[in-house]
Amino acid sequence: MSENEDFDFTIEELGSRNVHSPIAMSKTLGDMIANYVTDDEFVLLKPQIKLGEQATIKRSQVVECAGPREMIYFSPHHVHAGIVSCGGLCPGINDVIRAIVRCLSRYGVSRVSGIRYGYKGFLPEYKFDIMPLTLKDVDDIHKLGGTFLGSARGGGKEVVKIVDAIEQLNMNMLFTIGGDGTQRGSLDIANEIEKRGLKIATVGIPKTVDNDFAFIERSFGFDTAVAKAVEVVTAAHMEANSQINGIGLVKVMGRESGFIAAHTALASHEVNFVLIPEVPFDLEGPNGFFHHLEERLSKRHHAVVIVAEGALQDQLIKEVKTDAGGNVKMVDVGTYMRDRIQKYFDDKKIETNLKYIDPSYMIRSAPAAPSDSIYCERLGNAAAHAAMAGKTKLIIGLVNNEFVHLPTKVVISHRSHVDPEGALWRDTLDATHQPVLMINNFQSDTLFTNEFSIPV
Amino acid sequence: MSENEDFDFTIEELGSRNVHSPIAMSKTLGDMIANYVTDDEFVLLKPQIKLGEQATIKRSQVVECAGPREMIYFSPHHVHAGIVSCGGLCPGINDVIRAIVRCLSRYGVSRVSGIRYGYKGFLPEYKFDIMPLTLKDVDDIHKLGGTFLGSARGGGKEVVKIVDAIEQLNMNMLFTIGGDGTQRGSLDIANEIEKRGLKIATVGIPKTVDNDFAFIERSFGFDTAVAKAVEVVTAAHMEANSQINGIGLVKVMGRESGFIAAHTALASHEVNFVLIPEVPFDLEGPNGFFHHLEERLSKRHHAVVIVAEGALQDQLIKEVKTDAGGNVKMVDVGTYMRDRIQKYFDDKKIETNLKYIDPSYMIRSAPAAPSDSIYCERLGNAAAHAAMAGKTKLIIGLVNNEFVHLPTKVVISHRSHVDPEGALWRDTLDATHQPVLMINNFQSDTLFTNEFSIPV
Amino acid sequence: MSENEDFDFTIEELGSRNVHSPIAMSKTLGDMIANYVTDDEFVLLKPQIKLGEQATIKRSQVVECAGPREMIYFSPHHVHAGIVSCGGLCPGINDVIRAIVRCLSRYGVSRVSGIRYGYKGFLPEYKFDIMPLTLKDVDDIHKLGGTFLGSARGGGKEVVKIVDAIEQLNMNMLFTIGGDGTQRGSLDIANEIEKRGLKIATVGIPKTVDNDFAFIERSFGFDTAVAKAVEVVTAAHMEANSQINGIGLVKVMGRESGFIAAHTALASHEVNFVLIPEVPFDLEGPNGFFHHLEERLSKRHHAVVIVAEGALQDQLIKEVKTDAGGNVKMVDVGTYMRDRIQKYFDDKKIETNLKYIDPSYMIRSAPAAPSDSIYCERLGNAAAHAAMAGKTKLIIGLVNNEFVHLPTKVVISHRSHVDPEGALWRDTLDATHQPVLMINNFQSDTLFTNEFSIPV
Amino acid sequence: MSENEDFDFTIEELGSRNVHSPIAMSKTLGDMIANYVTDDEFVLLKPQIKLGEQATIKRSQVVECAGPREMIYFSPHHVHAGIVSCGGLCPGINDVIRAIVRCLSRYGVSRVSGIRYGYKGFLPEYKFDIMPLTLKDVDDIHKLGGTFLGSARGGGKEVVKIVDAIEQLNMNMLFTIGGDGTQRGSLDIANEIEKRGLKIATVGIPKTVDNDFAFIERSFGFDTAVAKAVEVVTAAHMEANSQINGIGLVKVMGRESGFIAAHTALASHEVNFVLIPEVPFDLEGPNGFFHHLEERLSKRHHAVVIVAEGALQDQLIKEVKTDAGGNVKMVDVGTYMRDRIQKYFDDKKIETNLKYIDPSYMIRSAPAAPSDSIYCERLGNAAAHAAMAGKTKLIIGLVNNEFVHLPTKVVISHRSHVDPEGALWRDTLDATHQPVLMINNFQSDTLFTNEFSIPV
Repeated sequence: MSENEDFDFTIEELGSRNVHSPIAMSKTLGDMIANYVTDDEFVLLKPQIKLGEQATIKRSQVVECAGPREMIYFSPHHVHAGIVSCGGLCPGINDVIRAIVRCLSRYGVSRVSGIRYGYKGFLPEYKFDIMPLTLKDVDDIHKLGGTFLGSARGGGKEVVKIVDAIEQLNMNMLFTIGGDGTQRGSLDIANEIEKRGLKIATVGIPKTVDNDFAFIERSFGFDTAVAKAVEVVTAAHMEANSQINGIGLVKVMGRESGFIAAHTALASHEVNFVLIPEVPFDLEGPNGFFHHLEERLSKRHHAVVIVAEGALQDQLIKEVKTDAGGNVKMVDVGTYMRDRIQKYFDDKKIETNLKYIDPSYMIRSAPAAPSDSIYCERLGNAAAHAAMAGKTKLIIGLVNNEFVHLPTKVVISHRSHVDPEGALWRDTLDATHQPVLMINNFQSDTLFTNEFSIPV
Repeated sequence: MSENEDFDFTIEELGSRNVHSPIAMSKTLGDMIANYVTDDEFVLLKPQIKLGEQATIKRSQVVECAGPREMIYFSPHHVHAGIVSCGGLCPGINDVIRAIVRCLSRYGVSRVSGIRYGYKGFLPEYKFDIMPLTLKDVDDIHKLGGTFLGSARGGGKEVVKIVDAIEQLNMNMLFTIGGDGTQRGSLDIANEIEKRGLKIATVGIPKTVDNDFAFIERSFGFDTAVAKAVEVVTAAHMEANSQINGIGLVKVMGRESGFIAAHTALASHEVNFVLIPEVPFDLEGPNGFFHHLEERLSKRHHAVVIVAEGALQDQLIKEVKTDAGGNVKMVDVGTYMRDRIQKYFDDKKIETNLKYIDPSYMIRSAPAAPSDSIYCERLGNAAAHAAMAGKTKLIIGLVNNEFVHLPTKVVISHRSHVDPEGALWRDTLDATHQPVLMINNFQSDTLFTNEFSIPV
Repeated sequence: MSENEDFDFTIEELGSRNVHSPIAMSKTLGDMIANYVTDDEFVLLKPQIKLGEQATIKRSQVVECAGPREMIYFSPHHVHAGIVSCGGLCPGINDVIRAIVRCLSRYGVSRVSGIRYGYKGFLPEYKFDIMPLTLKDVDDIHKLGGTFLGSARGGGKEVVKIVDAIEQLNMNMLFTIGGDGTQRGSLDIANEIEKRGLKIATVGIPKTVDNDFAFIERSFGFDTAVAKAVEVVTAAHMEANSQINGIGLVKVMGRESGFIAAHTALASHEVNFVLIPEVPFDLEGPNGFFHHLEERLSKRHHAVVIVAEGALQDQLIKEVKTDAGGNVKMVDVGTYMRDRIQKYFDDKKIETNLKYIDPSYMIRSAPAAPSDSIYCERLGNAAAHAAMAGKTKLIIGLVNNEFVHLPTKVVISHRSHVDPEGALWRDTLDATHQPVLMINNFQSDTLFTNEFSIPV
Repeated sequence: MSENEDFDFTIEELGSRNVHSPIAMSKTLGDMIANYVTDDEFVLLKPQIKLGEQATIKRSQVVECAGPREMIYFSPHHVHAGIVSCGGLCPGINDVIRAIVRCLSRYGVSRVSGIRYGYKGFLPEYKFDIMPLTLKDVDDIHKLGGTFLGSARGGGKEVVKIVDAIEQLNMNMLFTIGGDGTQRGSLDIANEIEKRGLKIATVGIPKTVDNDFAFIERSFGFDTAVAKAVEVVTAAHMEANSQINGIGLVKVMGRESGFIAAHTALASHEVNFVLIPEVPFDLEGPNGFFHHLEERLSKRHHAVVIVAEGALQDQLIKEVKTDAGGNVKMVDVGTYMRDRIQKYFDDKKIETNLKYIDPSYMIRSAPAAPSDSIYCERLGNAAAHAAMAGKTKLIIGLVNNEFVHLPTKVVISHRSHVDPEGALWRDTLDATHQPVLMINNFQSDTLFTNEFSIPV
């Protein structure tokens, strides 16, 4: 995102807070008792700062800290909270659900309901029952992967039906665990709620195993996903290393960003090429990927390649057809690359043994690793505190290690990317020793004056 | 640490940098090529900022970004680098060693030596050989736990002998992987080096499984340690839950801080009491720990307790003797608590089954989990870049997700602690449902006016 | 056990079987339908046979095959089954419980009850409620370690009270999951039952993480226990290998046998000395353990030692006192060895770093690994089939890969041991390269004529 | 295999054994020293025996015990041993290689060479160098999956070239780690060797992750493979359980047998249908698989299906074409089933969410789990002992828990299968609750008289 944009990070609230929080905390520093968080606690979004710069910190540069408020909006006994999880699986969803239920129960809230199978669970045609969520119900769900409530894609555009259902259920709080589309749906729901003059808080917990929510430094489940992907890459490496000219090709998640791919390469230490959406590359030609792969094989007799699912899509959609409805269908870059690599070496009559692995379902359905489990617990707590305070149309995030409130409309307007010129990608190139750019017609003064080359 | 202290975060350098980095990078934004890092890139240490505040950012508030510089101090072919690992084990040491060797090799440095068994490896009386470290030597070491070089405590005070050895070996770079004491030793060595007019860079990589280095947001190996501790707590919970009035007692590392204890409780979801050095507690009495443990048992028939090794030391050192040399010997709080708990219930003739686990050696010797492995790789890279630039007397850290240079003397002057009034401890109390303070004579207006109590 | 003993392997039954099994199976070979097992299917206990030997196979050489019978004793709707788990934890107890409940349900049995906390759960003074066990209750319990029912030692001698409780509960089937003592108790209960003229089947599922039940080739949980112990040995090895003269000392379970110790050494490939109850050894002297340990350290600078908990007990009980009741208290050989080794090297002024690990609680509380999980499932099935057929006073076992019925009285009369002259110990010595016998006054012609020595 | 076949289990030897084994062992029982194994120690192949049966045990019913002999054929200093691994990966190959090298070294053999990439490594056109294998080279290879030597399919028919190479290398021992085809090749090589009058021992270590070598009760790597497959099934279950009518479909290895599939279902407890080559099934029709799958979905809303790769091949090869060379191409039953299931429900307009996982590469490349690691170590030892004794044309096996010698020609003449009427499949049906036979035109008196049905 551009550095100069002025985002409005103000958080909307349902009304003035007149209820004293039943969770007793302290306002005194030094008494060893945890403190309430006040509305004037902020975190600077971008801590990278030029020295000596004279500055008035503007509201558009800071975000509000999450946490329990002393005065809250809802009277706990009147609360009926709903939780819905949408879209694909991601490690940690159950941890988030559990944390919300438990934190609300500390306020004295006893009515929490789970919506089955995403937004579809609100639609009358699906006839799904609401699932009551007590402390006992959620006690052990964090030990399982997947989502306890079920999930589904779509349904979020049926805003009127959804708000009808919410009204019918007398819900005054909706927690949405989901990605971009889910949070977009959440905002539409909130707007419909507002139109009807209802007082219902909507709080989003951002879920994307790709880790590319804007402003948010890390999405839950990401550590677990990388750890699982590393296991797969280890397998691919073993296969590659045990065959004549073995090639291990692994497709990892990342529709628009290469975070999983880059982190997996850094963690596994065994990857030779990482192909991500943010960094363009040619397949053919003297500086193309195939050439460099061939070179690697001739030197080391095996190679491991990670490709993010969004890589190469720009090029591929030119080659493939649109579907009946006129939509461009995303190409499976994994099998595409598998076939192209195979053909390249077959044409050259070079014996290779390519093993292709697509581990997506194994990665996303795993139970959360401890670091994600902690993160999910804390996200869920922050979401419950926010809703109790009557804050709405917001998403919980982590910014500079602080849990914060971010307006939903701002977060969904952008997406985060691996910066090809930044430290993460620099370290990834170091780890893989792959060429900086595998493009044939690349022109750069910098490169030529520096005799640019990464030594193998 | 106090908020008002003015630390001098300036990084010392051996001299002017006249060598062009052989690692080709770009200075142009937008060319898809990773950029060099310049000396005017800083990160604000504390991003928590009051809104509307008029401020001139001062040098004492920002720290220098780590990363490869365009101009460097050392000519790669003249470099002989030494790496030493000291103190107790910690997951990821081998990853750091591997990253340093590999990053230096990208500069063209071919002479890297490992010092065996900590600073003792420099001392002539130990007769340890220096271990040459080539790319091939370090290729697979990250798969093992422990340290490839060996480690030992002590030896760091023999500064003259150590610098004699460094001179004899013609080393001009020393990487020290170790804790507080090690980095203190590193600074002493650097000062002796300076006294002798030598040009030798000393760069520290902070190692503490306790995670309590000042200013640094996370120490390597910490995620792994917590994950291992969670496994142990799960075992303790199973034992407790399978016995009549079963009590699982687990001692975790943390000599002066409760980070491992708190994170383990948050991740495991199965802990009922966390006892840490930062939060005082009474054992006996109506609001003491024993009383609350008994209540828990009477309600739920089993309990899991985590105690950090530094907990209760204030009280215990009054009871125990000093050793021959006059030093206060630290008490093993784990076995102490085991015996005291046992006695308490025996005296009351309540049948209990206490299982005590001290998993320290199993935790600290584990190979790094993927998230730590990534972190170690990047710490090692940053350390190598800093040394090549001739920067010295510094420690590599992570601040607000940026790798930075921190002066050794500043870092070792403080220590980080769990804030009993902050968000981490608040969420830990939520997760355990333990009483906020288990102290009998506690006076607090806040508490009384709020009828302070955490509902079970 | 002696080879010449004539055991009576006949299985007792409650009465003639007049009920047709509701589980439909086939009696026809070749119809692709699973067959009932008949009472004339036997397995030879010892398949090691001399060639050309003329033999009439005797009943005392064969054991009865387990499995579903066509005709059964109990009418399923009249069955009330009880399950009790006793003694220490062992991986897989929950899998066994689950399998029994599920297999009984296939017969149409709906009343199954869990007894809480071992035999104590039957005693009125403990006031524990019986726990109903439905299919739903047990559906996920195999994912947890420990025992769902709780366990406890003792209580088994209160035979009259126990049978009173069984009568009161109208139980006609009792499944006892436990070790030697538990099965001895089970037999006493069965005898009391018989004395009262009741028709109650008692079926034991042998539980011993030590793997030393007589006749039974493998006890459930053993694979899991070894896998866990291997993890611990890996940690001990890392600790040892990272220190100056590092010694990793691990105590594993095995009160009278060295199966876990030997298998762990074989699996880990990193153990230098295995000390087990079956093979005597001296500590001091020119052929004692300390001497050989010192030699190992002087050559390789680190060592890993496994000691089974029953090792050295013969010698140790001479040194220690008996308790008030006159019983000899077992000595903790782990801490004993730790202190003796430490003293040996301290006295010699040799710097060593000994790390002692006692992982027992972590090993025995683990959930069953897949191979054990399969085994437990099949043991539980076999137990349910046996009880439905009215067979009693028996233990389910595995003999030459067949599930069999063994009379309880025969199984508890013996114990299995590592044969110091057999293949397992031979391969263990190969794996460790430890001396064949560490005894000073050992006399053997074989040894001297062969210049007996295991090359390092 | 038929029960009545008379196999010749005699083991061929290269000549009389005149060398005294340098590994000192005992011939005395009771001296606590491991004993040599003698050639008259046998194990009965089938211990299932009818009672009272008068029998002369015949040579065709027993197999020779493996282990170290007192007198050996080869003089250790003249030995040059070769090790080759062929075919697909399997957990534990490196453990076997390591054990052979280490056991030979105990005899004093110092020349051991690894052949690269299967039998192809012998062929001059590939120009692969032989890889020397010292104790140090193999010390840590068991920690890696795959095969250290590389592997490849084919090459085994070039018998003349291979024996030329063996002669040129002066090898007098060849260890072949591989499956059916590899051992067939090994026998051809042995015959060519014999034709040339050479004295070269060939010893096979049977490798098949499918676990279907005839006579051998368990193949190495099998436990590990099942454990990995269970992880995948857990993921498939999580996916299925989290979606509307979710179906998790997992293809596991098993070209001609369903051992992995059945054991995985037993271990995971979460599988509803297991489809294996040994048990035929219809897809369509009132008793077909699709119908039963639909019923399961309508009752429980999700289902998990395991299909062994060899399932349905009989039917499929009728539908598909042969390749250019006239060979029938095996059909990928995984993707076939995926598409057919999808079509079935699409046609019926039933919303389902099918997730298909093919985890083969992840399973077979894993490092050996501890139980397999022990097994591999012992197999390798037995192989080395056999070769040193000059035994040849044999395969090492495990029969009734004893390591034995089996003639290669007998083992490769048969294959082991899951018995649809035996205990393993019976327990698998119990675990899955799937119908006994999903065939429409099935006729069986047994079934009808018994009102055959497995209650759900």
